[in-house]
Amino acid sequence: MHFTSEQRLDDAVLERAFTLGEIPGLLWTPASAPAPLILIGHPPLGLRKMYPRLAGRARYYAAEYGFAAATIELPGSGERPRWAAAERARADLRRAMEAGEPVGDEIVDALVLPLVEKAVPEWQAALDALLSLPEIGGPVGFEGGVISIGVRLAVVEPRVAVAGFFAGSFVPAAMFEEARQVTIPLRVLLQWDDEGNDRQAALDLFDAFGSKEKSLHANLGGHTGVPRSEMEDGARFFARHLK
Amino acid sequence: MHFTSEQRLDDAVLERAFTLGEIPGLLWTPASAPAPLILIGHPPLGLRKMYPRLAGRARYYAAEYGFAAATIELPGSGERPRWAAAERARADLRRAMEAGEPVGDEIVDALVLPLVEKAVPEWQAALDALLSLPEIGGPVGFEGGVISIGVRLAVVEPRVAVAGFFAGSFVPAAMFEEARQVTIPLRVLLQWDDEGNDRQAALDLFDAFGSKEKSLHANLGGHTGVPRSEMEDGARFFARHLK
Repeated sequence: MHFTSEQRLDDAVLERAFTLGEIPGLLWTPASAPAPLILIGHPPLGLRKMYPRLAGRARYYAAEYGFAAATIELPGSGERPRWAAAERARADLRRAMEAGEPVGDEIVDALVLPLVEKAVPEWQAALDALLSLPEIGGPVGFEGGVISIGVRLAVVEPRVAVAGFFAGSFVPAAMFEEARQVTIPLRVLLQWDDEGNDRQAALDLFDAFGSKEKSLHANLGGHTGVPRSEMEDGARFFARHLK
Repeated sequence: MHFTSEQRLDDAVLERAFTLGEIPGLLWTPASAPAPLILIGHPPLGLRKMYPRLAGRARYYAAEYGFAAATIELPGSGERPRWAAAERARADLRRAMEAGEPVGDEIVDALVLPLVEKAVPEWQAALDALLSLPEIGGPVGFEGGVISIGVRLAVVEPRVAVAGFFAGSFVPAAMFEEARQVTIPLRVLLQWDDEGNDRQAALDLFDAFGSKEKSLHANLGGHTGVPRSEMEDGARFFARHLK
């Protein structure tokens, strides 16, 4: 892990860009150390595009709760190399949605499963590096982004103690089985009128999670309309569990 | 409205029992006045039985947010006279549930619709009396209890500006049509494994509400297992809207 730049967002929060091998990432740390860590997931649109939202959350977490936060670029996003199968799957998805056709299982599988396979070990490698820093303690929470990545990470990575998911992306059928193996406390956001998301599938996924403590927050509105109060509530949820 | 007794719960909260005609009620007021008012609904089990939970919420609202809170006995509960049709409907419900049979529409209608018809004008009369007190200002929030009473009240009573519902009781089919007419900001609680509640009906009811701002919070667990964090979140929801 190499830090490539740093800036103070305000007195309380230090933002550092890093690379982990070929993978770019961002780390935000509060003044107090060692801090619990939130891994902030995001959709595969590239860190540059997602930056304002990610930095806004991280700053809030650091300033209000003393959490550190970090994120890394997803495989095939931003400056990272594309791979042919993913490009094909994205094109198939676009075609199906533009034609108003249902998005078939093959498209969803081709779109999401390789991304999960590639991304999860990278988030685990990032965890190794981040947790070796003296300013970061633990435990670790994961939130947001591609829900299937979060599900897999919650199953295979024991250092992730709690998670907040956003049920706003296509979920391969195989992930429902993995969802049953998730046992950490969960908070799941659902936008009730999410254009590109299957509401019933999201409810079924919530039902499938094996966690004894799980909470679904559904809000009226489309994919990008999550109310700000949910970020604040999510922070309190992490604060209850990251002690 | 006649006050029949009063006690200080602590320095910040005054609890007064009252009668409104034949209807007993309770009012909690904070030190600061005039205060916004939360009407606290409850299941038809009698105020005496519900007292600890009601007083606990009211105390929290008054001490933490400076809200006044009030509740009245439901028709046919506590010391109030029963009526034959309601007793028959309750007996039918018990029989169906003990036999493990589905609870038919006739039973639900007979159980809930007359209760809504009788209770709603009483809550409105209570509002008249409460809002005439100098220590209570407005606006008014309604929460909890029999959801169909809350739905009707939200439709017919313009002084109720915001509501928090608990989707934990049988809902007559006719109430779904009324739900479409609700336009105030809503927060709906659902216990995911509520023994006596139909989850799909609760989701359908949430979908039916006409409000532009509505949020569903579903938590794992049975009817009585609502996490305490939801009371705190509910109070913040009211605070955002009762300004």
